[in-house]
Amino acid sequence: MAHQALEVMTATHHKTKPDPETLQFGKTFTDHMFIMDYSSENGWHSPRIIPYQPLTLDPAAMIYHYGQTVFEGLKAYRTDDDRILLFRPDENFKRLNRSSDRLSIPDIDEKMVLEYLSELLKLDKDWIPTYEGTSLYIRPFIIATEPNLSVAPSTTYKFMIILSPVGSYYKEGIAPVGIYVEDEYTRAALGGTGMAKTAGNYSAAYKAQDKATAHGQAQVLWLDSSEKKYVEEVGSMNVFFKIDGEIITPSLSGSILEGITRKSIIELLKSWGEQVTERRISIDEILNAVREGRLEEAFGTGTAAVISPIGELSWKGEKTLINQRETGSLSRKLYETLTGIQKGRIEDPLHWTYEVK
Amino acid sequence: MAHQALEVMTATHHKTKPDPETLQFGKTFTDHMFIMDYSSENGWHSPRIIPYQPLTLDPAAMIYHYGQTVFEGLKAYRTDDDRILLFRPDENFKRLNRSSDRLSIPDIDEKMVLEYLSELLKLDKDWIPTYEGTSLYIRPFIIATEPNLSVAPSTTYKFMIILSPVGSYYKEGIAPVGIYVEDEYTRAALGGTGMAKTAGNYSAAYKAQDKATAHGQAQVLWLDSSEKKYVEEVGSMNVFFKIDGEIITPSLSGSILEGITRKSIIELLKSWGEQVTERRISIDEILNAVREGRLEEAFGTGTAAVISPIGELSWKGEKTLINQRETGSLSRKLYETLTGIQKGRIEDPLHWTYEVK
Repeated sequence: MAHQALEVMTATHHKTKPDPETLQFGKTFTDHMFIMDYSSENGWHSPRIIPYQPLTLDPAAMIYHYGQTVFEGLKAYRTDDDRILLFRPDENFKRLNRSSDRLSIPDIDEKMVLEYLSELLKLDKDWIPTYEGTSLYIRPFIIATEPNLSVAPSTTYKFMIILSPVGSYYKEGIAPVGIYVEDEYTRAALGGTGMAKTAGNYSAAYKAQDKATAHGQAQVLWLDSSEKKYVEEVGSMNVFFKIDGEIITPSLSGSILEGITRKSIIELLKSWGEQVTERRISIDEILNAVREGRLEEAFGTGTAAVISPIGELSWKGEKTLINQRETGSLSRKLYETLTGIQKGRIEDPLHWTYEVK
Repeated sequence: MAHQALEVMTATHHKTKPDPETLQFGKTFTDHMFIMDYSSENGWHSPRIIPYQPLTLDPAAMIYHYGQTVFEGLKAYRTDDDRILLFRPDENFKRLNRSSDRLSIPDIDEKMVLEYLSELLKLDKDWIPTYEGTSLYIRPFIIATEPNLSVAPSTTYKFMIILSPVGSYYKEGIAPVGIYVEDEYTRAALGGTGMAKTAGNYSAAYKAQDKATAHGQAQVLWLDSSEKKYVEEVGSMNVFFKIDGEIITPSLSGSILEGITRKSIIELLKSWGEQVTERRISIDEILNAVREGRLEEAFGTGTAAVISPIGELSWKGEKTLINQRETGSLSRKLYETLTGIQKGRIEDPLHWTYEVK
């Protein structure tokens, strides 16, 4: 993709910003959005920032029929000295390209897209909330737009970035959630699309989420699709268990999302001298460790919550408490360190933050 | 859903109809389309036929992010005496509701939707081609429209029907295709969405289709996701094997699409006194039967091709001919019977056709 000049059309009308104390996730959007087009002949072209507006597509556009789409999720933070920080955005755009490869979508130029995102953020800077725990959620996504009912990759696409100010995930401080171990529905199989951030993976999980809710739990713990034995993810987060001082997370099998928070936590723990192991871990091993008092703590990791401590497990009709439903010291330290780095409040020893200038 | 009056806005401009001899699949659409809306408060409402036109949605509409969508595919045929026939449309709308249940989408009133479809077909009747082998492809689909990045079922949806005149699948008469047995990628796992007609299942298959093409074969033969041993589907068709006089098709495991052509062929074969068995069948059993000369013929079944004879298998680098790459007598008889019933040219003993009046 040749470098192309970014066209900027600013909004003449500015929307009212929502109250930062009552922000809901993903319901309010900023004044502008980024969009560029792809065609087989011209590649990615016409990058532009335009006022946030509806999208008009043919009803036969392939996105509506065959799900050829990928997305990313990351956050912009406003520091106490009014700088804009992103957390490892290069990792998000690399993963977007890995997801695109799985879905037969043409890749994007990661560096240029980061430049376009930076321009968009500067324009909508006032939308980045400063209230404790808030941030601006960034949603880059690509959709197949060719009007054609043939089951084949599209020849045209749109790449877009929309921005949404989001509230604190924890209204009353970090707190453990209960999880339901799902043994009927499958999130992803080996050879499927589990490692890709693609739309179909998410709606496929709603039925299992209903079951978790019916069992009084907040999230689903997914097992592998073949044997329904090994732990994969929690909801749309990666998962960690601390057993006998060793911190274990499921290895990237091909059906597990390669979380950027997951990767960062592994790197951070290793930099602290902790023992971290990526391997298969069965639900039986976890429950045995709980019974024998060897499971110290468990937590999910992801962009939305950063760290989500696990306080309870429901499995085959039985409920098991983890760490007396309290937030473990490791969960708390990881949460405070990661959010501290993201907000630019503490040192960033592994050079993860990217300042938008 | 209460009965609601259908609003009809006819097109003032009529598009030029394509040459029936050079029709491509799914690229040309008729003058009108059907649309109705759903909201949690009002259920499905405002059914209307309007001129075919682009759809305008918020870029945060859930269809673009979490793939909450289902679809159907069926055909309208114009008989030699100018009647409009559909093939088992009630089965399509029942399956649409089964797919919707899996994707947490509200169900539609199957009878009313068939009435709406009938009105749309009457209005666009001149678009149903009459040329040998042609038909009007019907694509009903539902998409989640709520602008919200939360990973949860949408509270608003659109149900739409678009129509596309399609050419003959076989330009030069029914002919066998080669298939590539895929042992890396997975179409669907148990507990996944394989039984639902939902977008994500289709784009997930493009990488495997690329491999089939690279191996010189037309379609992918999918194996089960757990053991990569049992046959599931061919491309987006169900599959049948005739071995030692017995006709075998994989049983509906939960990861296989419940094809309406599949179901019809089983019923038809049974009405002819043939032995049909729905059971697990491994790729080894099939290749052994070929080697021992006991595999008489194999074919895929689906709405697009009706019957697609299989003439060759690629598996682990070896190519195996089936029935000397010729169309078997059973494949031909099934094809002629089903297409004859669909076009209203022969008796319809099982009462499958529905006349639009």
